[in-house]
Amino acid sequence: MTVVAALLNGLPIDPRQPALPISERGFQYGDGLYETMRLQLGKIHLLDDHYQRLAHGAQRLNIVAPYKPQWLAELAMLMQHHQDSALKEGAINDGIVKFTLTRGHSERGYRPPLYAMPTRLWQLFAAPPRSDIGITVRWCETRLSRNAQFAGIKHCNRLEQVMAQSEWSDPAIAEGLMLDTEGELIGGTMSNVFLCIDNIWVTPDLRYCGIAGVMRAALLRSMTASGIAVEQRSVHGDEVAEADELFLCNAVRGIQPVLSLEQRQWPVGVMTRQLMSVWSGAQ
Amino acid sequence: MTVVAALLNGLPIDPRQPALPISERGFQYGDGLYETMRLQLGKIHLLDDHYQRLAHGAQRLNIVAPYKPQWLAELAMLMQHHQDSALKEGAINDGIVKFTLTRGHSERGYRPPLYAMPTRLWQLFAAPPRSDIGITVRWCETRLSRNAQFAGIKHCNRLEQVMAQSEWSDPAIAEGLMLDTEGELIGGTMSNVFLCIDNIWVTPDLRYCGIAGVMRAALLRSMTASGIAVEQRSVHGDEVAEADELFLCNAVRGIQPVLSLEQRQWPVGVMTRQLMSVWSGAQ
Repeated sequence: MTVVAALLNGLPIDPRQPALPISERGFQYGDGLYETMRLQLGKIHLLDDHYQRLAHGAQRLNIVAPYKPQWLAELAMLMQHHQDSALKEGAINDGIVKFTLTRGHSERGYRPPLYAMPTRLWQLFAAPPRSDIGITVRWCETRLSRNAQFAGIKHCNRLEQVMAQSEWSDPAIAEGLMLDTEGELIGGTMSNVFLCIDNIWVTPDLRYCGIAGVMRAALLRSMTASGIAVEQRSVHGDEVAEADELFLCNAVRGIQPVLSLEQRQWPVGVMTRQLMSVWSGAQ
Repeated sequence: MTVVAALLNGLPIDPRQPALPISERGFQYGDGLYETMRLQLGKIHLLDDHYQRLAHGAQRLNIVAPYKPQWLAELAMLMQHHQDSALKEGAINDGIVKFTLTRGHSERGYRPPLYAMPTRLWQLFAAPPRSDIGITVRWCETRLSRNAQFAGIKHCNRLEQVMAQSEWSDPAIAEGLMLDTEGELIGGTMSNVFLCIDNIWVTPDLRYCGIAGVMRAALLRSMTASGIAVEQRSVHGDEVAEADELFLCNAVRGIQPVLSLEQRQWPVGVMTRQLMSVWSGAQ
């Protein structure tokens, strides 16, 4: 997926040129956060939810988040910069916008500097291929570690996801499911998971690990508003086999019904279809 | 601590100028490893141990480590570059050398690229103030998460240490002790810990988390060679209060006896003095 425009600390940059100093704490320690957003027909889905999660994560890590008006102004600058520079080829209307916020740079040492100036990086990518018709997934052997202090937020310490995705290369497998070190189901490497068990939707509560996706949050709101029963609770890995229906979701790809997980097959179920139609109505 | 020289992928760079692309996976995901080494009288302590740990960590993360001759040649280049550029001020003979190895750069996405070209960064820093006479430490509230897959290696996912060090700013407190999420003692934020309990030295076994320091490894070898009893085992946080002697260690600062931990005080004990003299004889 190619980056077509980038804005670093408010200024357009060439994404192929060196731009970050070696003292950048994102590089030193993964000391930052990011948001990956879906751009469709020139509009970003769930923009407010993304800002909320970013602000919440920044508060947890004690990084100063940009004020929302500044953040939105920079997003507009990114899009404008792309339109200005893509006149010949035509600007893209559909893609992915990634925003990264790190603690900024500092000399060597874990301790955050007293007066850090956070790094703000916007990137625009061409859209990935989209698959709504259902996907094949597998189990990952890499486990997620538990630490309530960092649970839910989308920080840049992502070695577990990197190693999980390195477990397979077959492009027919779209995603890998991950358990935590205690055997609880948490989600996909880059998605949240919903299971329908005995006509009730269930999603892992993410109290110890996992990323609380904005699509997950939006679906929970939408289901509650539509009177669809849904529980957030701890889900053991073994419960996946008992699920009547199963889907993954994230902000970029939306709802992705799972058709196959190793030996187990599912059709796209009635409950999932209902949810997909509720969701498309809610947007 | 100021960086005085840097070498990126074999070439000298100005450490104050942008040098890394935004696609660098160290920056995106903390997808890398590092070593922090002590330079004294122009010589790096425990150089072989540092290379061994780096190579081991790289193997665990499936990153291609440089061959040792290349690695050593680059270290020599760093030092030569520093000497050439520091003619007026005088080259430093005493300091810290940090080597960072990341998976290199890639487009957005956790999956490691098939043919990644790892990033190699060498940095030379002026020496930190050294304190061998004993230090004051505190407990950190931030816990370390457990995941045997990543235990022991010095990878770049260090948010836990960053948040732990952000818990205090009093310069009289040199280090913070950390427990894991189950209440086991792991070490300091940037050091390993040894406790003397009933005349036996004990150090946490780091099977689930923590960084296996090269100084820790060298001390274990040296103690064994000298017939000093030492155990690697799980250590509960409560055992710290029972310890007759306690010290922290790392490659940069050596052995640091703990004199004070919140309400508890210790003198520099007989066993610690014995160990410090064994250690200085072993070097």
